[in-house]
Amino acid sequence: MKGFVFHGPGEASWQDVPDPGLKEPTDAIVKVGAVTICGTDLHILKGDVPEVRPGTVLGHEAVGEIVEVGSDVRTVRPGDRVLVSCITSCGRCRFCREQSYGQCRGGGGWILGHLVDGTQAEYVRVPYADLSVHPLPAAVRSEDAVLLADIFPTAYEVGVLNGCVRPGDTVAVVGAGPIGLAAIATARLFAPERIIAADLVPARLEAARRLGADAVADVREAPGQLVADLTDGLGADVVIEAVGRPESFELCTRMVRPGGHVANIGVHGKPATLALEDLWSKNVTITTGLVDTYSTPTLLRMAAAGRLPTQQLVTHVLPLEQMEEAYDVFSQADETGALKVVLGGERHEVAVPVA
Amino acid sequence: MKGFVFHGPGEASWQDVPDPGLKEPTDAIVKVGAVTICGTDLHILKGDVPEVRPGTVLGHEAVGEIVEVGSDVRTVRPGDRVLVSCITSCGRCRFCREQSYGQCRGGGGWILGHLVDGTQAEYVRVPYADLSVHPLPAAVRSEDAVLLADIFPTAYEVGVLNGCVRPGDTVAVVGAGPIGLAAIATARLFAPERIIAADLVPARLEAARRLGADAVADVREAPGQLVADLTDGLGADVVIEAVGRPESFELCTRMVRPGGHVANIGVHGKPATLALEDLWSKNVTITTGLVDTYSTPTLLRMAAAGRLPTQQLVTHVLPLEQMEEAYDVFSQADETGALKVVLGGERHEVAVPVA
Repeated sequence: MKGFVFHGPGEASWQDVPDPGLKEPTDAIVKVGAVTICGTDLHILKGDVPEVRPGTVLGHEAVGEIVEVGSDVRTVRPGDRVLVSCITSCGRCRFCREQSYGQCRGGGGWILGHLVDGTQAEYVRVPYADLSVHPLPAAVRSEDAVLLADIFPTAYEVGVLNGCVRPGDTVAVVGAGPIGLAAIATARLFAPERIIAADLVPARLEAARRLGADAVADVREAPGQLVADLTDGLGADVVIEAVGRPESFELCTRMVRPGGHVANIGVHGKPATLALEDLWSKNVTITTGLVDTYSTPTLLRMAAAGRLPTQQLVTHVLPLEQMEEAYDVFSQADETGALKVVLGGERHEVAVPVA
Repeated sequence: MKGFVFHGPGEASWQDVPDPGLKEPTDAIVKVGAVTICGTDLHILKGDVPEVRPGTVLGHEAVGEIVEVGSDVRTVRPGDRVLVSCITSCGRCRFCREQSYGQCRGGGGWILGHLVDGTQAEYVRVPYADLSVHPLPAAVRSEDAVLLADIFPTAYEVGVLNGCVRPGDTVAVVGAGPIGLAAIATARLFAPERIIAADLVPARLEAARRLGADAVADVREAPGQLVADLTDGLGADVVIEAVGRPESFELCTRMVRPGGHVANIGVHGKPATLALEDLWSKNVTITTGLVDTYSTPTLLRMAAAGRLPTQQLVTHVLPLEQMEEAYDVFSQADETGALKVVLGGERHEVAVPVA
């Protein structure tokens, strides 16, 4: 088969690789129907994630069809159309029993395209298939469903639910890439009073408005002042960090009101400065998190009911074999206007860029 | 009357000051029966709290008797024995309505001995008396009750409740001064599996054991390793910071397990480094807070029932007029073994030091 193989920093290619086979009785083999590229994949390509060994097939988001299952798999069978979650779950360890699947100590967690071969291929072996794939409602198209492998549960759980967004809240989202946009879309489910989005890129701020932001700000032009002006100087009830840089996180902690929440979604490579001399008395709650995907079944039902604006995030759809071109489109998002780039799915044309 | 007056960094004295009078119809005048000194008072004396103006009477913890009330005061009257809370509450602003009295926007919050004259005097004017004093059960002695003006609700709300201590948890408390010890005592109310205390001073670690710590560690000798050894390498479920230094906070963030809580109680004067490159994926919750004192009525009932080990924290009891000596005893805690120093109350001898 073909797969997108990481060869070391800056090097990867769509090439022949051996077909995956069952290794454990809890495995399933999935024929990939649609797959997407995550910002984390770009980090891997840059060499920022050293535990990814050369030779690994990348990718942790997919939709496909079960073609083979191990003898212990009970809940899916060949022919089933499934979502392959970015998080694999053993189901037996302490953390899985507490629905903290992302922290799985039994060999799961984020492993696809990280510690084992991933989804950017024609076939993928999914360990612990019973808990790591989700049967897909027929009403959900593949190019919608694939956004529920990672970015929607991540934005919803780590941003909106950890941030405790409630009706009437002022929510600020720093970073309007795919994750920030999915946070805006899922924050709206809780009827906040207003959502304020901040980013560097005008096209992303336009997308933020389409997804439901009531106000947008260039992150270089004192978005904290905009938040203060809109909240009688208090600050936002919930601030969601969807960038992953120290200066972005620090901005978030300056925009939150006394008693408010800062929910960090961003993947960080460096420490940030925490202004405890200001924050110690402010009753602030700061959360971090890798997605657990406990919300994925709920989000799938919502997608089936047409309640999630998944398609507004998909700017480009290409055939699977154009993986290398897709990486180019995604990595040059400032020029191409790419938000999410989907490979495969039911429509194989290049969509109109957002910008 | 006499009061302990701040004159500027390094200067304060027990001296004649004008008797306080009613200024607002919501005020009460309290004759101070027992008062104590807080670590924050030492910070003020050092000049670390610049908003405290020279001429201010210090102190924000007291027990006493109502001697006069304004025309709008409804719930207490002259002769009532009351606890004067460190937090004053207007009761009408958004934050007071949400029980976030510490964040009061209506002229309350922490104001006694800070923005207005405080409790280290023979009499004190208490604004918004209806919501800022608590009638005292007869069963609670003054030198016990005075610990409920600040340190017990602070340790309980900002440490134990914000940290979400639950049965079976491993709780680490960094800093075994009065606040850390009160955190240990109130964490025990939730039946944790174990409490681990870390401090620099052996006498404080002994006190921690008496208050209920199951294990203690010198903070210079890798307390994180002790926590890891006791938790299969995972870390503590809840880590409570009760020091107020960057290195102490940073230690706390290294001792917490995936999915755990770091509850900051410490009063910080400098920023800390937040290791987001490690923490972003750990599902960690970090909280800060000024006490709101919503738990004070509950704690008073518990004290009346003998369920709080308040007396184990009181090492010295002096007459009110020995305020300057009391500050010396408290500020030289490493030599005197002082934990809480109470002035006034029902017994006026110097207790045996802990050390």
